[in-house]
Amino acid sequence: MPPKENPVLLHELDDQGILRLTLDDGARRNPLSEEMLTALHKAVAGAGCNPDVRVIILSANGPAFSAGHDLKEMTAGRAGPDRGRAYFTKVLGMCSDTMQAIVNCPKPVIAEVAGIATAAGCQLVASCDLAVAADTAQFSTPGVHIGLFCSTPMVALSRNVGNKHAMEMLLIGDMIPAARAAEIGLVNWVVAPEALRDTTLEIAGKIAAKSSMTLATGKRAFYAQREMPLREAYEHATQVMVENMLARDAEEGIGAFIEKRAPEWQDA
Amino acid sequence: MPPKENPVLLHELDDQGILRLTLDDGARRNPLSEEMLTALHKAVAGAGCNPDVRVIILSANGPAFSAGHDLKEMTAGRAGPDRGRAYFTKVLGMCSDTMQAIVNCPKPVIAEVAGIATAAGCQLVASCDLAVAADTAQFSTPGVHIGLFCSTPMVALSRNVGNKHAMEMLLIGDMIPAARAAEIGLVNWVVAPEALRDTTLEIAGKIAAKSSMTLATGKRAFYAQREMPLREAYEHATQVMVENMLARDAEEGIGAFIEKRAPEWQDA
Amino acid sequence: MPPKENPVLLHELDDQGILRLTLDDGARRNPLSEEMLTALHKAVAGAGCNPDVRVIILSANGPAFSAGHDLKEMTAGRAGPDRGRAYFTKVLGMCSDTMQAIVNCPKPVIAEVAGIATAAGCQLVASCDLAVAADTAQFSTPGVHIGLFCSTPMVALSRNVGNKHAMEMLLIGDMIPAARAAEIGLVNWVVAPEALRDTTLEIAGKIAAKSSMTLATGKRAFYAQREMPLREAYEHATQVMVENMLARDAEEGIGAFIEKRAPEWQDA
Repeated sequence: MPPKENPVLLHELDDQGILRLTLDDGARRNPLSEEMLTALHKAVAGAGCNPDVRVIILSANGPAFSAGHDLKEMTAGRAGPDRGRAYFTKVLGMCSDTMQAIVNCPKPVIAEVAGIATAAGCQLVASCDLAVAADTAQFSTPGVHIGLFCSTPMVALSRNVGNKHAMEMLLIGDMIPAARAAEIGLVNWVVAPEALRDTTLEIAGKIAAKSSMTLATGKRAFYAQREMPLREAYEHATQVMVENMLARDAEEGIGAFIEKRAPEWQDA
Repeated sequence: MPPKENPVLLHELDDQGILRLTLDDGARRNPLSEEMLTALHKAVAGAGCNPDVRVIILSANGPAFSAGHDLKEMTAGRAGPDRGRAYFTKVLGMCSDTMQAIVNCPKPVIAEVAGIATAAGCQLVASCDLAVAADTAQFSTPGVHIGLFCSTPMVALSRNVGNKHAMEMLLIGDMIPAARAAEIGLVNWVVAPEALRDTTLEIAGKIAAKSSMTLATGKRAFYAQREMPLREAYEHATQVMVENMLARDAEEGIGAFIEKRAPEWQDA
Repeated sequence: MPPKENPVLLHELDDQGILRLTLDDGARRNPLSEEMLTALHKAVAGAGCNPDVRVIILSANGPAFSAGHDLKEMTAGRAGPDRGRAYFTKVLGMCSDTMQAIVNCPKPVIAEVAGIATAAGCQLVASCDLAVAADTAQFSTPGVHIGLFCSTPMVALSRNVGNKHAMEMLLIGDMIPAARAAEIGLVNWVVAPEALRDTTLEIAGKIAAKSSMTLATGKRAFYAQREMPLREAYEHATQVMVENMLARDAEEGIGAFIEKRAPEWQDA
C-alpha cells in the first residue's frame, strides 16, 4: 500500500535513535481524530518494537499542540440508531488505548509542547513520561464548558498532579500557562519558544545514549510498582533489579564505570 | 420546628446557585462541635439534592476558619463508664462522615479561608475540592502537641500533599503560612484578605455557569478513578464519558460550541 | 564481642532523646555496603525499641551523604557459579529491608544531607520521614548511566514526588540541586551549609518534645492509611484516634492544654 499523500502524523528517525512524531493537522489544531489516534497508536506500538528507536519525541506543527477529540467527528457519530453509543465507545476506547500504549511503550516518550494542549491533547502530554513546554504553551481540560467533563483526560492528569490542582483544571476549565503547569507537575521544564526544540533534543539525546534494555526495564517497573503497596513494590523492584544486574548491559555499564571508560551497549 | 435562634452555621443561596455556608461560632474559633458537624453534614447533604444549588462555598466568621474538634466537649465525654470510648467513636465518626459527605457531594465545594485552619479545621479545607486562602490564613495539624496525633485529618491532608510535606505538618505541628500551603498543594490560590471574597465568588461563579449534571458526573468519577489502577481507571472513565456524551447537556453544549452560541443547560 | 575499631556507622544519643546516626565511611563516599546496611538496619531497629530514643537524625561524614550501593562489592559478587544471582538477591533484599525498617520505625527519622545523595543514597533520603538539605546537596538516581536502572530507589522516590519528576531523575540520571529537590517534594527544607546541623537539631528538638506514644501511633497510621481507599482510610484512622484519645498521654496533653500548662509525657 503506498503511503497516504497527506498523513496526519509525521515520522523522523535520526541516527541517534530519536524518533520525532509530529502531529501534522495544524490547520485543524491537531485534533485526535480517528485517523490521528490510529496513526499515533500504530507509531508508538511500532517504535516500541523497533530496535532503531531509542526515545520518542511527540511534537506538533501549527499553533496548537492538540485541541483533543474531533468534536465534529464525534457529533456526526450521533447519527446512528443508538444515538452514537457504539461509536463513542469505540473512539473513546481508541483514545484510552493510545494513551496507555504510551505508558506501556518500552521507549521513553517526551512531549514537546509549543501551543495549546487541551482536553485529550492535555491528556496526551500527561501520558508522556516527560514534557518540555515553551512559555507560550497553555493547558486546559475544558470539557466542563461544553457539558462533557474531561473524565478520561483526568485519569492521566491526576496521575501527574495533586487532587486540588487537578480539580482546579477540571472544574473551571480555563487555560493555565506553562509556568503553572510546571509548578503543579504537569510538565518538567518551561523554556523560551526558540529554545524548545534544542532543549527537547538535548534531553532526548541524553536518554538515547542509555541502554535500551535498561530504559525498558526501568520504565515498565516504574509504572508497575507505582500501583502497589510499599512492601509489594519493594519485592517487585528487587526482583527486577536482580535480573537487571544479571543482564549484559549492566555488567558492561558497571565494568565501564569502574574502569573509567564509556560503556558499549548491546543494541547500540 | 422553628429555626434555632443562634445557629452555628449560616446558609445564603444567591440567584446564581452559589450556596455560602458560613461557620458562625467565631467567638469560640468555630470548633467542629457535635452541633457544628451535624449542621454541616445536613447542609452539605441537603445541597447535594437541591437543584437550586450549583456550587458551595465554605467560609467562616471571626478570626479563625476553624480550630477543629471541640476539646472541652471531647473532654466532657470522658465522664462515661467506658472513659469516653463510645462518645469518641461517635464524634470522630460524625466528623469522618461529614468530611466524606463533602467529597461525595455532587456539587463542587470551595473552602474560603481567611484565618487559622487547624486539626479537623485543616482537614475540612483539605476535604474541599478547591481552596482559596487569604495571605493571613495559616494551617496546622497540631494534635501532636497535645498527645493526640491528627490521624483523621491526615487522611484528607495526605490526599492533597506529598508524604514529606504531610509529615512536616503532622510531626512538628507548627503553623504553616498560606504561601507554603499553596506550594505544597493544600490550597489552590492565595490572595490579599480584601480580595478573598471576590476571588472565591469569581471562581464559584465560573463553576455555577456549568451544567450541574456534568459537574456531578465528573466529580464522582474523579474520586472514584483516583483509587483505581490505570487500566481500570481508564475503563471506568471511558464508560462515564460515553454516558456523558449521550446526556442532553453534552449534546447541547457541543452543539452550542460548534454553532458558536451560549449553551442552555437542562437544570439552569 | 568488643566493638569494632572502625565502625562505619556512628551513634550519638543526647539527653533530649535525639539519636544521631552518622554514616562514617566518607573516604569511600559512604557506600551502602553490606557492613553499612547491616549496621544501619540494626541501629534503626534498636532505636525503635529503645525508650531513650525519641527521634533519629541520619547524617554523614565526608563530602558525600551516600553514593548508594558498593559497586565493587557487587561486582565481586558476580564470581559465584550463579553469576551473582543469590548474592544480588541477598544484598538488594538487605537494602529494601533497611529502607522499610526506617518507614516502619516508630521513631521519626530525619535525613540531614550536606553532599551528594545518589542511587540507594537518594533512596535513603526519600525513605526518611523528613529531610533537611544544605544548598550544597545534590540528588540523583544515576543507575541508568551504567545500565542498571534505579528500580529499588524509585519505590521510595515515587512515594515522595510526582510521576514526571520521578521520571526526570530516573530516565536522565543527572544531579538535581537541593532547590529542585525541595520544589518536587524530595526534601522539606534547604538551608545554608553552616546552618544545616542547627536547623536539623531544632526540628528534631521539637519532635523530641512530643509524646513518643503519640508519634509512634501517628507515624504507623500515616503509612498504613496512605495505601487504603478513602473510606477504609477513614475507618482505620478513626479507630486509631479513638485509641489515641483513651491513652494516658492524650488525656494529659489535652488536660494540660485546657489548663494552659506544659504536658508531662509518660515516657519522658
